[in-house]
Amino acid sequence: MQKEIIKYPHIHGVSFTNEGIPTSFPSHWHNAAEFILILKDGCKYKIDGRLYAPEKGDILLVWPRELHEVVHTQENGLVLIQFSSYLLESNSDFAAASHFLNECHILKRKENPELAAKIEDLIYQIRDMQKNTQYFTETRCKLLVYEILLILGDFILKEHQQSLGNENFSDRLWEYIRYACSYIAEHSAENITQAEVAEKTGLSQYYFSKLFNEYTKMSFPSYLAGIRVQNAINLLENESLSVTDCAFEAGFQSTTTFNKLFHERTGCSPRQYRKMRSQNKQE
Amino acid sequence: MQKEIIKYPHIHGVSFTNEGIPTSFPSHWHNAAEFILILKDGCKYKIDGRLYAPEKGDILLVWPRELHEVVHTQENGLVLIQFSSYLLESNSDFAAASHFLNECHILKRKENPELAAKIEDLIYQIRDMQKNTQYFTETRCKLLVYEILLILGDFILKEHQQSLGNENFSDRLWEYIRYACSYIAEHSAENITQAEVAEKTGLSQYYFSKLFNEYTKMSFPSYLAGIRVQNAINLLENESLSVTDCAFEAGFQSTTTFNKLFHERTGCSPRQYRKMRSQNKQE
Repeated sequence: MQKEIIKYPHIHGVSFTNEGIPTSFPSHWHNAAEFILILKDGCKYKIDGRLYAPEKGDILLVWPRELHEVVHTQENGLVLIQFSSYLLESNSDFAAASHFLNECHILKRKENPELAAKIEDLIYQIRDMQKNTQYFTETRCKLLVYEILLILGDFILKEHQQSLGNENFSDRLWEYIRYACSYIAEHSAENITQAEVAEKTGLSQYYFSKLFNEYTKMSFPSYLAGIRVQNAINLLENESLSVTDCAFEAGFQSTTTFNKLFHERTGCSPRQYRKMRSQNKQE
Repeated sequence: MQKEIIKYPHIHGVSFTNEGIPTSFPSHWHNAAEFILILKDGCKYKIDGRLYAPEKGDILLVWPRELHEVVHTQENGLVLIQFSSYLLESNSDFAAASHFLNECHILKRKENPELAAKIEDLIYQIRDMQKNTQYFTETRCKLLVYEILLILGDFILKEHQQSLGNENFSDRLWEYIRYACSYIAEHSAENITQAEVAEKTGLSQYYFSKLFNEYTKMSFPSYLAGIRVQNAINLLENESLSVTDCAFEAGFQSTTTFNKLFHERTGCSPRQYRKMRSQNKQE
């Protein structure tokens, strides 16, 4: 496994790439999300263990920290945007919907021509914006990324809603989950419990637990652990903090739990992660 | 002086108010920014020590932590939006432009009819969005706030550019300042120096200092202190941290400096601030 550090032109930024993309690239992961627009048929991509053979016009979605591999692409066969995972993680709407988003890795042009065309257009708007030297270019690029995420998010959640039936997946109930995820994001460094979050959302613990599982497809402890590992990864970038400091600041109560959960979610130990990161920095 | 805590329907959120606004309200401040659309003539507002008599269609701008007072308004004479200061502070574009934005407190419809009409339209879009229970309502409201900020920011910076002449205020030089502000925001908790930031932006310390003063209208130490006070205010909301913890976590090297700079910028001590906040919470 190889960990790649993405260098943005701007901190917390967005980048567009259309040149110098190798026709194959070994398995790797990074904190940034990566959306790939396919320009030529005959491409093979592996994302999160699954092989994809996208056609011209399709869009591949690689979410933060997902292992992916360019098995083969044509020369100038694709363009891509990458954006900081911070844009997803700092936003409670997308944090709440992360399970549903992260399940979706390909958008087929043939099945959803209008949607794919809209996203293609936004990707090229990001390219054009980056050539620009207006005052607020970074903000404008981020807003374009959010436009893409909103279009995608609406599409993915509506598909899910249809498959479940409206009464089992309602906007009103979703609002409880969004509020809970927002509360968890704000308090993940503290010693919060499911009972506390249930109380804050105004639901009984039993009902909250049931709803949370149904809507996020994760248990509360597993969701909380995921958020804490995300935060620890961000803290590990600060070389002046020890690994133990990062664990406690992220809300873990013991380093043993931290190491175990970190490894489960990233495939490496916190120390290995930091080492890879500083090696990448020097290159 | 009265400190008011704004309660949002959502954490880090945006709110629209058109009902129950008192026709006068004593001097107060809050972390949220507040944009006020005037519906009826005959209103008097005090912002940051200056009296304004806006006319119908004008827009007043109250920036985070600015003292302001409703001297008098007509019944149903205005509507307003409030949004978390986080939207401004977490964004390096707007952090860099904060001095210029914060200087502007009124947008007169007669002088800039098109601009005022656009912002009015966006304010009502926020109202309509909040009635909505789509999945990503909070994100959509935030994007609308950013649209307003972009329109305002472009307008304010272009006015400034014209008054200075193009060669003294260029997009290219602005990019250095934006990058520096972005770096400061990321590292304000550490012991950073002007020399370090100058080096990161690729400029000599002398030239960086000159440019930074010209473009932000603040010295580097003063700008850094402002960012650290902002961060301390956010940390003080967490009751489990001591005031000293907040000072050090925000990057202050001594509590004496912290207390002094906090008082300069907010008109109260950190302890008074926290007390007001917890009183407000209980009400």
